[in-house]
Amino acid sequence: MKLSRPHEECGIFGIHGHPEAANLTYLGLYALQHRGQESCGIVSSDGNTLYAHKRMGLVADVFGNQEIFKKLPGRSAIGHVRYSTAGASVEKNVQPIMVDYSRGSIAVAHNGNLVNAQLLKAELEAYGSIFQTTMDTEIIIHLLAVARTNSLVDRIVEALNRIKGAYCLLFLTETRMIAVRDPNGFRPLCLGKLGNSWVIASESCALDLIEAQFVREIEPGEMVVCTKEGDIKSLFPFKKIEPTPCIFEFVYFARPDSYIFGKNVYMARKELGRQLAREYKVDADVVIAVPDSGVPAAMGYAEESGVPFELGLIRNHYVGRTFIEPAQSIRHFGVKIKLNPVREILKDKRVVVIDDSIVRGTTSRKIVKMVRNAGAKAVHMLISSPPTSYPCYYGIDTPNRKELISSSHTVEEIRRYITADTLGYLSEEGLVGSIGVGNTNFCKACFAGEYPVAFPKPAQQPQMGLFEEEYKEND
Amino acid sequence: MKLSRPHEECGIFGIHGHPEAANLTYLGLYALQHRGQESCGIVSSDGNTLYAHKRMGLVADVFGNQEIFKKLPGRSAIGHVRYSTAGASVEKNVQPIMVDYSRGSIAVAHNGNLVNAQLLKAELEAYGSIFQTTMDTEIIIHLLAVARTNSLVDRIVEALNRIKGAYCLLFLTETRMIAVRDPNGFRPLCLGKLGNSWVIASESCALDLIEAQFVREIEPGEMVVCTKEGDIKSLFPFKKIEPTPCIFEFVYFARPDSYIFGKNVYMARKELGRQLAREYKVDADVVIAVPDSGVPAAMGYAEESGVPFELGLIRNHYVGRTFIEPAQSIRHFGVKIKLNPVREILKDKRVVVIDDSIVRGTTSRKIVKMVRNAGAKAVHMLISSPPTSYPCYYGIDTPNRKELISSSHTVEEIRRYITADTLGYLSEEGLVGSIGVGNTNFCKACFAGEYPVAFPKPAQQPQMGLFEEEYKEND
Amino acid sequence: MKLSRPHEECGIFGIHGHPEAANLTYLGLYALQHRGQESCGIVSSDGNTLYAHKRMGLVADVFGNQEIFKKLPGRSAIGHVRYSTAGASVEKNVQPIMVDYSRGSIAVAHNGNLVNAQLLKAELEAYGSIFQTTMDTEIIIHLLAVARTNSLVDRIVEALNRIKGAYCLLFLTETRMIAVRDPNGFRPLCLGKLGNSWVIASESCALDLIEAQFVREIEPGEMVVCTKEGDIKSLFPFKKIEPTPCIFEFVYFARPDSYIFGKNVYMARKELGRQLAREYKVDADVVIAVPDSGVPAAMGYAEESGVPFELGLIRNHYVGRTFIEPAQSIRHFGVKIKLNPVREILKDKRVVVIDDSIVRGTTSRKIVKMVRNAGAKAVHMLISSPPTSYPCYYGIDTPNRKELISSSHTVEEIRRYITADTLGYLSEEGLVGSIGVGNTNFCKACFAGEYPVAFPKPAQQPQMGLFEEEYKEND
Amino acid sequence: MKLSRPHEECGIFGIHGHPEAANLTYLGLYALQHRGQESCGIVSSDGNTLYAHKRMGLVADVFGNQEIFKKLPGRSAIGHVRYSTAGASVEKNVQPIMVDYSRGSIAVAHNGNLVNAQLLKAELEAYGSIFQTTMDTEIIIHLLAVARTNSLVDRIVEALNRIKGAYCLLFLTETRMIAVRDPNGFRPLCLGKLGNSWVIASESCALDLIEAQFVREIEPGEMVVCTKEGDIKSLFPFKKIEPTPCIFEFVYFARPDSYIFGKNVYMARKELGRQLAREYKVDADVVIAVPDSGVPAAMGYAEESGVPFELGLIRNHYVGRTFIEPAQSIRHFGVKIKLNPVREILKDKRVVVIDDSIVRGTTSRKIVKMVRNAGAKAVHMLISSPPTSYPCYYGIDTPNRKELISSSHTVEEIRRYITADTLGYLSEEGLVGSIGVGNTNFCKACFAGEYPVAFPKPAQQPQMGLFEEEYKEND
Repeated sequence: MKLSRPHEECGIFGIHGHPEAANLTYLGLYALQHRGQESCGIVSSDGNTLYAHKRMGLVADVFGNQEIFKKLPGRSAIGHVRYSTAGASVEKNVQPIMVDYSRGSIAVAHNGNLVNAQLLKAELEAYGSIFQTTMDTEIIIHLLAVARTNSLVDRIVEALNRIKGAYCLLFLTETRMIAVRDPNGFRPLCLGKLGNSWVIASESCALDLIEAQFVREIEPGEMVVCTKEGDIKSLFPFKKIEPTPCIFEFVYFARPDSYIFGKNVYMARKELGRQLAREYKVDADVVIAVPDSGVPAAMGYAEESGVPFELGLIRNHYVGRTFIEPAQSIRHFGVKIKLNPVREILKDKRVVVIDDSIVRGTTSRKIVKMVRNAGAKAVHMLISSPPTSYPCYYGIDTPNRKELISSSHTVEEIRRYITADTLGYLSEEGLVGSIGVGNTNFCKACFAGEYPVAFPKPAQQPQMGLFEEEYKEND
Repeated sequence: MKLSRPHEECGIFGIHGHPEAANLTYLGLYALQHRGQESCGIVSSDGNTLYAHKRMGLVADVFGNQEIFKKLPGRSAIGHVRYSTAGASVEKNVQPIMVDYSRGSIAVAHNGNLVNAQLLKAELEAYGSIFQTTMDTEIIIHLLAVARTNSLVDRIVEALNRIKGAYCLLFLTETRMIAVRDPNGFRPLCLGKLGNSWVIASESCALDLIEAQFVREIEPGEMVVCTKEGDIKSLFPFKKIEPTPCIFEFVYFARPDSYIFGKNVYMARKELGRQLAREYKVDADVVIAVPDSGVPAAMGYAEESGVPFELGLIRNHYVGRTFIEPAQSIRHFGVKIKLNPVREILKDKRVVVIDDSIVRGTTSRKIVKMVRNAGAKAVHMLISSPPTSYPCYYGIDTPNRKELISSSHTVEEIRRYITADTLGYLSEEGLVGSIGVGNTNFCKACFAGEYPVAFPKPAQQPQMGLFEEEYKEND
Repeated sequence: MKLSRPHEECGIFGIHGHPEAANLTYLGLYALQHRGQESCGIVSSDGNTLYAHKRMGLVADVFGNQEIFKKLPGRSAIGHVRYSTAGASVEKNVQPIMVDYSRGSIAVAHNGNLVNAQLLKAELEAYGSIFQTTMDTEIIIHLLAVARTNSLVDRIVEALNRIKGAYCLLFLTETRMIAVRDPNGFRPLCLGKLGNSWVIASESCALDLIEAQFVREIEPGEMVVCTKEGDIKSLFPFKKIEPTPCIFEFVYFARPDSYIFGKNVYMARKELGRQLAREYKVDADVVIAVPDSGVPAAMGYAEESGVPFELGLIRNHYVGRTFIEPAQSIRHFGVKIKLNPVREILKDKRVVVIDDSIVRGTTSRKIVKMVRNAGAKAVHMLISSPPTSYPCYYGIDTPNRKELISSSHTVEEIRRYITADTLGYLSEEGLVGSIGVGNTNFCKACFAGEYPVAFPKPAQQPQMGLFEEEYKEND
Repeated sequence: MKLSRPHEECGIFGIHGHPEAANLTYLGLYALQHRGQESCGIVSSDGNTLYAHKRMGLVADVFGNQEIFKKLPGRSAIGHVRYSTAGASVEKNVQPIMVDYSRGSIAVAHNGNLVNAQLLKAELEAYGSIFQTTMDTEIIIHLLAVARTNSLVDRIVEALNRIKGAYCLLFLTETRMIAVRDPNGFRPLCLGKLGNSWVIASESCALDLIEAQFVREIEPGEMVVCTKEGDIKSLFPFKKIEPTPCIFEFVYFARPDSYIFGKNVYMARKELGRQLAREYKVDADVVIAVPDSGVPAAMGYAEESGVPFELGLIRNHYVGRTFIEPAQSIRHFGVKIKLNPVREILKDKRVVVIDDSIVRGTTSRKIVKMVRNAGAKAVHMLISSPPTSYPCYYGIDTPNRKELISSSHTVEEIRRYITADTLGYLSEEGLVGSIGVGNTNFCKACFAGEYPVAFPKPAQQPQMGLFEEEYKEND
């Protein structure tokens, strides 16, 4: 059972030149666990050989045994956490991918999604490539193997020039670690330093945990090469374009303690709440959040509106892990598994409930009902983002259009469906204005349907299928 | 790695007369997971036979397979969650205990701790009893087996009249479920109803999850017998004494959405925060909590003092599960695994940090340092309970006295140790007054050293050893 | 799938006073694996504490990890192999049983079966004993715990004086190992020496493997106490009776390389074959065996009759381990899984097939058919033991009477059922005369129905039920 | 611990057009277990999709769960058993290999060894192929993927025309099963029929178990295509050469009940024993075998010489599975784990011991010592094959030359090393003459060093390294 939010698909972490590389990568992945809970893996290098450990499961489970680290020696390591996709044979899809090819060994960890994956795969197979996984990432490896240039950096550039889509990549060879962020800069990636060693992470919270110093973000289109000697080189090998980072990293993907585009996520979320209060003035006695991601916005709303903030819904700490619903013969407990209202707070009150998004509407409907059953006189649902009507093809696991309630219903229709007294979404201008990172041109695909990287025509859109296949929400 | 808080040792749940008894018990235990994370188990009865499934692990893991419920048939079930104790051979200690004896089969789930366990065990062994576990609870079973009275209820009363200490018990036989709460009423226990079936749970949040109606608390010294016919009988078979419930259930054990002694825990905690603000006036820019248990008190403090409340420390959602620290060669990351500060909030601020207790002081020291490193100009630590200087022998896993920093240090000494600018504990009067449940005479063992149930002299205090053996905090 | 032979229920092994006690016990159990394949266990003592490792599975699997032996320290150890019984909860029935009681710790390994188990259990439970397993062996432990005498040896004698049936027992305490063989001497038990340490084993083949010297058999009714100092004391604490050892240890239970009653098993089996040739003169071209246990008798038959012996049925080496028959939709392959005929040998031949017993007749019928399908002109089945018409209550897992084909059918009827041209059983006189161990009065329960140790009347015969429940042959 | 015999590396089995294809493949592999005990796997096809299950372990363990077969639907299946090679990451090397490539899915099972594997692999990698395993077999798949011809059959021929060495192959696509035997016909492969479905197996004993009819052997250089329609087509796409089958399949690899080159293996082995008796006349009282493979030759020797045959060495039935030697601190039990002498037979006798080969000599030395310790007056060791002085590169896992005692020692030197009174090897003429399959020109690589398929020069002989790496005998 999962609450119906879109899911980030991956987080990556790497460190180069530290005697405890695998251990620190473990900690880094632990801090990035919110970006992917299905599987995780680490590949390390001792200068001559790559070593891997990867499994289905949470970081603390997969690496919860000191013995594992003895088998991950060396001063460099990269790691990956991945969001759950359904299906029996997913073990083989766990990252990082590690292969031997004509030039030696290489491992890759990838956060993102390629839009021309199927075309490239068909072409590679036609020339004799054999694929072992169903992941986009393996295409990059094959492109690398068939590249005609000579140096590793050139081969990577040659390979990446053929792919389109969203990617933050970490490569590890016997002696080098290389990080690349796509020219659109869809997903975040940052650079840190711990003593003399270089660290790369999807979010800054992973640097904090290992007490590494935040240096800067990796820029859109940048390639950073960490050499054997401990230096780093920065390259911009791709054609420069206007970056279009994902604004939803601020709305709900990133951890509140992370900094993205130089801005703290918690503060950004509070500002979204304040802006909501400016856009929607509601007569209410109390404002509550759908925990945990809605809390900062609810606090911002409370500050701006003067309506007191309370913890009206208590979250069970032990969700986040797998939860198997019991037999079908008893009714579906749904959201009650995760949340329990505090009657004392809600009884006879006019309640504002702040959440960060509505996907199918079923969860929101349950929450409204739960709050009303706890005695609320009125329930006003306010959402700290605009309606998301279009699926994401850049690394987020959204339902397909049919299931996105906003794609086929007006706000008023949704309000009736979720049985709220009021329903309000933050305006697009309100969102962009609140985040306000200079002139940044955020990607607006999911709410405006403007896709910054074109993808093959529908007939050739295997990703659609992919999303459907991988779709497993059942809130 | 655990934060240094005392730990509740157990939670119990039972339901009698429902076709989905085991499934609902699973959900009930899930809601009570915060009362014990090491192991869990369910015993069900189909009227003729008892069935058990129990294991080391969290509820969602141990019961995360629908097949298990096919092996737990019947309309009655009891379950148990247990706090972690160290050691290799603990599998046998998982509850409920189920045995066959001369009168048939019986299962027992126990929340509490007996103070005369070792004496009784030695006596029973001398007469030929053979013990299979190292749990107090098994003593109750043996007393039952050797009891000379005839009916089950009489035998239970005969057995319980010999034991001393804290106990909430659930017995399950082929046809009956019996709940007992000790005369002191140390631990909470409540009665609910779901349709025609009766439900017993440590806390009301477990009733909420299965949508059972809260009926009332089981009273101290009360025995509730759920019969085959679906009736319940209430008995008071013990000598009546003045109850002494545990006030720390309010301070940090119970879930905030539970009701105990007719009072909501979240509201009680907010009141502790308000009282703290009355007792300690501090010049501060922001008040933050040590999440999650300190949050309500911090919100209460903010309301009373006018200092704004912020989420200054972000908790990793994925702790709570086992976390293996990586190799000893890298420094101990301790509290950073769980908490990360939001620099934006703390920088250049005078910060009030609210926590609910200090055990050894090591964690508080790390938190103060973490807040200060994030840029705070001043760190004022306020604790929403009085100093706890004495171990609990009534079902809480506290460190022994040597390790309780309050037992050997003044508040000023502790302040210096944790490097806070201010350290304040809530007064005993403030605590009792804030909770304010009529004239209730709470147990004051842990802060005043007044033990309401006497225990054998130190020389005969094997529990001390038990606590030490089971002690595994390493914050 | 198992061939339909009765099964020995257990084998035991112990060593006292050797620095590699657990390792050698492992090897001893490995040599005794044919006496029990379901589960196995070892308990060791380092002089102060007992340590156990036991599991479902074969010896090489359960102990196939050097780490295990680090957890079985000490200079004394006892072990047990046990035959498979059906059911889900058998893990708890794995031996040796180890308990703490008023006098310390004790472990017991038992080969045999008690006939008054249920009566004793009911009595013990009435006085308050609580049983954890469904094994006879636990009764012995409880009798020990409630014994009123003082020394360990006295308590064991007091306990054993209350039990009736077949038992070879090994007790291990912190400092002593004690072996006991029941006064009837149903099952074999022998004493060996390895350097200065004493060894006890069900069969001499276990001594051979560890290169221990065979000293002598433990006599019926004898108790051997191995002391802390390395001495042994021999006691005869029971009323002396005429021993009645099990002759079927020679016919098929024991390993051919073992010596029992001073006689080599392989030689005894060849003699049974010679005697068969004297009793049945058949015109035949070739004599073959049902491998492996029928081979020595077939060789003896060939020697005496002059008919050449060939390996006409080849046994798959990899049976003996669990074999799961594939889906029910394809026909039952039964005995073909184990045996394949060599057509070259059987084609157009008159074939004598030697087997050691017929239980239900279904396997024999399949073998006759298999031999005939391979081209044999005639199939003469000769059995190297008399018809077994009665179940064993002394430690062998036989089917109940209804399923023993001999108990309700004449030899001619059986011949017709198994479709042989000839069927001959060895005569009782032939059997006893061939084994010919002085005047030994063997137990004739299974073929003559004369039970040397009386058991409670049928109404009180819970063992019958036990056998039925545990019955899992499906040849 | 393994006795020091060379090991067959693989067995293969396939069935096309049967509703219980996977089940029957399981049984077929079970019958071929002696050809490979490390790992096994089955791939099935339901006409549209391939399904796989493969693991480390014995057939009965890997497939010992009916649920597995639900995941192997369809009317066609191929399977593989593989001999053990050391190393941690061998899971990925389990066969059949299954991949998706441009033309769909294909699975391959391979018995044999390629001699130009490394050269081909280097070439393929240079063109961009990425290898996932370290098995020769994957090379075949890659050659198939890059082949330029069109039809599947043409592509297979194109691929196989590039490889050199020994191979029996089974390919499975969605609709077809294709079997190929290399032109030299090193390893056996036969064709059977079960109702309307076609069966392919390494040895005929696998046909017997499933009650399929033996049709004929697949000829050297033959390709058999089983089509969707249920027909088979036979092709001979390779240049015809003089076949050179492996004579050691008769000496010890194949099962005695199998037929190879139209000859029964058991009968052939008896003839080797008879020939040994003709070549070596020894004054002896008894002839015994090293079980189980030496038994037929010992029986043949007894027939020809008149010296009686006895089972002088008893084999533990439970070896064959993994056996972990206990701690190094106790001496190495070596061959005693497997074999125990019957003293009664050997005492004061002149004993002929028949074995089928000597590899390093260490095991033979232990056996001679064991027989002598059991009281033998003289020990004459006779070997039913010539000395093997050269490693096999055609699918047998032999030690490298340094470890083959015959490669550097005379027969007399070996005799002294193994401490036998006599040592005799069967002559090359005696071996070939006894098997006597028409004019067949057997491969004589291992005893004469004449390799029928040339392999790259030593400097390019990575197989040598492979053998050493995979070498794990420790008798």
